[in-house]
Order: sequence, then structure tokens, then C-alpha cells
Amino acid sequence: MYKISVLTIGDEICIGQIINTNASWISGQCTSAGAKVLLHSSIGDNLDMITSELGRLGDISDMVIITGGLGPTEDDITKSALCRFFSDHLELHEPTCNYLTESFKIRGRTFSDSNRSQAMLPSSCTALSNSVGTAPGMLFKREGRIFISLPGVPSEVKAIMNSHVVGIISKEIKKNKHKVVLYKTLLTSGMPESALAEKIGLSGQFPESATLAYLPSYSGVRLRIGVESGNADKAQLILYDMESKLRQRIGEYIYGEGSDSLENAVGRILVEQCKTIAVAESCTAGLLGKTITNSPGSSSYFRGGLIAYSNEIKIREVGVNQQTIIEHGAVSKDTAIELANNIRDKFDTDLGISITGIAGPGGGTAEKPVGTIWIGLSDKNGTQAKKYVFGKHRNMNRELAVTYALSWLHSHLR
Amino acid sequence: MYKISVLTIGDEICIGQIINTNASWISGQCTSAGAKVLLHSSIGDNLDMITSELGRLGDISDMVIITGGLGPTEDDITKSALCRFFSDHLELHEPTCNYLTESFKIRGRTFSDSNRSQAMLPSSCTALSNSVGTAPGMLFKREGRIFISLPGVPSEVKAIMNSHVVGIISKEIKKNKHKVVLYKTLLTSGMPESALAEKIGLSGQFPESATLAYLPSYSGVRLRIGVESGNADKAQLILYDMESKLRQRIGEYIYGEGSDSLENAVGRILVEQCKTIAVAESCTAGLLGKTITNSPGSSSYFRGGLIAYSNEIKIREVGVNQQTIIEHGAVSKDTAIELANNIRDKFDTDLGISITGIAGPGGGTAEKPVGTIWIGLSDKNGTQAKKYVFGKHRNMNRELAVTYALSWLHSHLR
Repeated sequence: MYKISVLTIGDEICIGQIINTNASWISGQCTSAGAKVLLHSSIGDNLDMITSELGRLGDISDMVIITGGLGPTEDDITKSALCRFFSDHLELHEPTCNYLTESFKIRGRTFSDSNRSQAMLPSSCTALSNSVGTAPGMLFKREGRIFISLPGVPSEVKAIMNSHVVGIISKEIKKNKHKVVLYKTLLTSGMPESALAEKIGLSGQFPESATLAYLPSYSGVRLRIGVESGNADKAQLILYDMESKLRQRIGEYIYGEGSDSLENAVGRILVEQCKTIAVAESCTAGLLGKTITNSPGSSSYFRGGLIAYSNEIKIREVGVNQQTIIEHGAVSKDTAIELANNIRDKFDTDLGISITGIAGPGGGTAEKPVGTIWIGLSDKNGTQAKKYVFGKHRNMNRELAVTYALSWLHSHLR
Repeated sequence: MYKISVLTIGDEICIGQIINTNASWISGQCTSAGAKVLLHSSIGDNLDMITSELGRLGDISDMVIITGGLGPTEDDITKSALCRFFSDHLELHEPTCNYLTESFKIRGRTFSDSNRSQAMLPSSCTALSNSVGTAPGMLFKREGRIFISLPGVPSEVKAIMNSHVVGIISKEIKKNKHKVVLYKTLLTSGMPESALAEKIGLSGQFPESATLAYLPSYSGVRLRIGVESGNADKAQLILYDMESKLRQRIGEYIYGEGSDSLENAVGRILVEQCKTIAVAESCTAGLLGKTITNSPGSSSYFRGGLIAYSNEIKIREVGVNQQTIIEHGAVSKDTAIELANNIRDKFDTDLGISITGIAGPGGGTAEKPVGTIWIGLSDKNGTQAKKYVFGKHRNMNRELAVTYALSWLHSHLR
């Protein structure tokens, strides 16, 4: 397999000031190209640490991709570290200098000394042009290994990866007849990890070259199939075979693939069935409506809803019977049913969905502990409600309530 | 200084399927506690790699924090790696087993064999209780170094860090008389970075051992003061002095400190002034209501709202004049004003706030491009509206709209 390490440089990462989205994005591209990303490493702006990390990663990888630390300010020492590591020195790189001068002229900006320093590159590198920024990428070769240094700005990382690096990786894999690893992720909801695992059975029934990983999150469990092979076509066939086996066993819980979302899956079915929906939310206070409208184009099926946070609003604006709340409480089957039913009626939609619960931290009782949530679902055939008891944490309870509501809606529509 | 390495384990990180938010969050907490985070390392589910990485990181750090790979399914090999590294074996941990059995009973779920395996811990570890999930954290000591293993789910990472790990770090720093770096972050809103910098003046006026960093985000600019000293009390004094200087110069833009939030700050003032609020949301479709109710106890001032996603709902349910929408459009000053005014009236609250805009990607015109948002604010003295033009990205536009609405509300109340 063609092995890649990703090295991110910058104090702002180590003190937790920014999230390292570059490493994730770069790895996704490398993986799609059939390479194996061995590791991510993130270190601060320290010359010694950078130099020794370049050595360590070069020893275990076919390619090292470095990002961060190529901006115009003084704390950027990546180039110094590269010069030290490759026993090289900086030289003015004419094409980069011309490109920079030209693009500054177009934007009416002055070309300063600190900008000029961006055109100084280690003499042994090949510059990789950067269509969206000022600092080019740099490629070095040493002992059959490739080192590629990219700027830190995400849009520039993407531009140089797409126009140069991905092609280089594919060529290297082909040239050296490396093994490829292909992945596919199936998205499930409405079933906890352990129960899903039992339904799927032992991974021993899958081919040896394949792996199945369970990735749980609030929105359900993602199942990632991985297949390793010397032949990309063969890997694709095994992947396809594993996917059909999984779909046979747990197809009803799969709502999408890859980077799809539950709200998109629900939206597609609503469009297909020409149905509209409205929401009545108590404890989630708008999170369900917000989540449904994450999908662009949701205005074709989502009409709106009522945030009925107080009991008075539940009664006056959604028409919940006062007696229902007195007898059963705001967090009850009856209230959830009236909310779902009445919002469908009031907003004149095909479907109404409601959430009422105790998100916490306060408000729990022995009978109805924090985390108790009722979800109601109404359509022309009637209205039902389901009870869930999640955990102690307010945010988690609200996220889970929305996920289970969408998950129920999804299986109901299907 | 007390040196910490953060090790994240999981194929899903190396293949770029998920963004490593845990490493960033953990680092932020360690940094706030006065420690120095040396590096982040992320590797796949590979026993040999994990074991050797534990050795490498242990050699250069006082503490290694490990996260990921503690779920109930077979792909989780962190515990095996820990057993191998510490020459240890798994044993049933009674308190964890009892806690799990109990919490499964409460939620009416069956306690399966794979759940039982979560109560199996390396015999030499100290379990760190996990209030929000099933897998406890684990603490090991070796040759004066501390190794802490956390689950991979972000809410569980946060819970165990907050209730155990942060305290341990502070104790270790005190005990070993490490140099400390103290940070304090002041949260501002309603003022862009450059204008804030001008008001604050040169950082040269601050002591040499102190730094001031500007951290812009959706919710405003955070100002991070950093002070390094061999003496924690001295560092605290310098920090305090810098804080008072900043408060003198830009106090009116500071709404909180540390991990406080704008919605909490708004909530505190609403409670203080005994005022209630309702929302009318179009493009944000519930995100404002959801955000206001992030604060526990918000039911004392937030009564609810209307998600008026379609024009029909704006007219029929919030009473916006049909003529207003025909003449000025749904995204206009007049519509924002009617929405804010009418929701205040309808929900009988002291304040009404509205958001209507074009979140994108569709719906933009030359006159009203994607990113155009009107925010309305109504109280007994009248109703006003403000226009903003943000960017091209749907999620960003919705997040910014809510932040600017809360920021306006905050300064209006104050």
C-alpha cells in the first residue's frame, strides 16, 4: 500500500484554538485516490520538533504531506525547517515572483517585502502552483520518498491538492503497483450499535481482505466497509458484495451513504411523495425545524412550526387541551399526540411531528427522569406517539430527540 | 512546563471521514489549565502502531491523553493496546458493571454481552466515571507519567475531562512546581476585530510575559490573554491587571468570559429585568429558539415562537400583511418589523425578535443576494429592523443571523 503521513504545523492547533479540518480533508482525498493514510501529526511552530518529525515520518511513509506555516507572517518557520531538513537554502523563484507581482497589480495592492519573501523557495523543490493564494506548494524528493508542503489556508490546500497532489498520488500507486484500499460508508439510524452488530453477525462471514467498522454518533451508526486489494476492480467487486449482504440484513435501517444526512433522506422522500410537514416543538425549541431546513430546497415540503416552550403557548397556540396537561403533564403521550395532530391541522400539512420532553438539567422526577422525551407523529391515518428515555445532558437529549424523530419519520414514510 | 500529548485512535480519522474535534477541544482544556500541549497524533486501529506510539509519546510527555476506540464493538482495540503496553489483562470492573446494568434497566434496554465487555477494564487502571455514556475513562501511571484513555464520543470526552482530568492536570502542575501558562478569554460581540484592536491600543503597553490574541469567530471576537510565569500567583496578578485594562477600554463589548455564551449572557439580563421573549423565524427555522434555549432555565423568559418558513404561514399565523410581502418581499425591513411586532403581541411577551433572509444556496437576486438577512427587534417602545449581508454559505448565514440577533438583543437590553 502507498503510505501517506499528514503533518500539520502551528501553535494554534496545539493550544486548541482551531480545529484541524485540513488534515481530515487531505486524508479524505488521499484515501479516495487509493492510498493509506498512516497517521496525522500536529506540532507547534518549533524548528527542532518540525525537523525531527520530518525525519520520523519520512522513515515510515512513501509520502509526507505538510500543511500550515507558509503565510507571510514571522511565526512561519516551515520553510526554515524544510531547508534545514534537506540541507538546502532559499532562492528567488522567478515564476512565483512574476505571478505574485502580476496578481498584486490586478488587485491594486502593493507588493511588499514580506510578500516578496513568499517567492523565496528552497532551491531543490519543485513549486506547485496555487491558483487561489500567494504561497505555492513545494515538492521534494529524497530516497524515493516524496515530501509535499502546502499552505495552511483551507481553500489553498484544496486548490493545490486537486490540481497537483491527487494526480501525483494516483501516478505513484500505479507506477509502483501498490495495493489499494477502498471504503464505502452506509448510514443507519433507529438502532443502537450493539443491536445492529447482533443483526449483522460476525465479521468472520466477510472476506478476509474486508473490514467493517461501526462509527456511532448522535444521528445513528455509520457502517464503514473497507477493502484492500492489489487490484482496484477486484476491490470494487468485494465492496459491492459486502454492501449487498449488509443491505439484506439491516437494509431497513440504512438511510443513505457517505456524507448524506438523515434530513436530506427524509427530504427526498417528502419531495417524491409530494408531502408537506410542520413541527410543534417544546424542549427542542426549534432544533427540529432547524435540522429539517439544513437541506437546501426544504421550502418545498417544510411549511414551518410552533415553538411551544411554555404550557400556555401549547394550550393557546397549538390548542392542546388544558385538561390533558393537568392530568398527564406536558411531557406525556397525550400532549405529544395533541401537539402533532393539531400542528398538522393548523398548518394544513400532510404530516405533523411533535417533540415534548425534559431536556434537563432540571425538571426531572422519579416517574419522568431527565431525558424523558415523547415524540408524536401525525398523518391522515391517525396520530401515534413514542417514548424515549435518553441521558442526563441537555444538549445530547435535544440532539437525540431530533434524530429519533427524523428516524421515525423516515421509516414511517418508507 | 507540564507537557501533554494528545493521541487520537481510529481509522475514521486517518481516512478523513471525521474531523478531529476532540483533539482540539481537549487541547483547549489542557491549555486553560496551564499545561503545554506538545502535539496531536492520530493513528488508525492498529495494535502495533498504537503500542509503539504510546511508548514514543510517554517518553516525551508528562501526560498522554488517548481518545477514541472504546465503543462496544469489535473494531475497538484501544483496550487491547493498553493491556499490551502496560503488560496487563482485562478484569470485570464491578462498579462500572453495576452502573451499566442500572442505567440500562432505567432506559428499558437489554444489557447485552457486548455491553458487558465495556465493564472489562485493565486491572491496573483507575476508572474515571462517565456520567453521559457507557464506557468509563481509564487512568494509568508509569514511571512518573500519566496515561489517560477516554471514549471517542465528544460529549463523553467533555464529561470525563471536566469531572476528572482537568483537576488532575492542575494538581500535577502545582505538585511538581511546573512553570505555568495561564490564559483567560474575554468574549466580545458587536465589534469587528480591527476596530476592537484600535480601541485596545498597542499590546506593547502590556507586560512582556503577557500576550493578547484576537480570535474571531461567528459569535464575535474572543480576546485571549496569556501569561507565563514560574509562579502561579504572580501570573494570576498580571492576568488580573491585563483584564482590568481591557475592561476599561472595551468593557461595553464584553459579554462574558471563558466558555460562557452569548445566549447565557442574554438570559441573565432577561432574568434580571424580569422580561420575556418570543421569536418569529423564517430562514433560521428554529435555530434562534434552539440557541436561546441552550441555556438551562430559559423557560423563565423564553415562551416560544413561530417558525414561519412559508409566506402563507407568515401571513396566516404571524399576521404579516399580505400587501407587505407583495410590495417589499418576505426578506425586507417591513416584513421583519411586522414579524417581530406581531410575535410579541401574539405571544404576549416583553420582547419579540424576528429573522427573515435568504440563506442560500438558491433564492438570491441582484438586489437581494444570498446572505441578505433582516433582523427585527420589538419592545414596548417600538420595533426596529437591521439589515445584514453575510456570505454564500447556508449554514454560515443562519449561524451569523442568530449571533447578530442575540448580539443586538444583548446590547439593546444593556
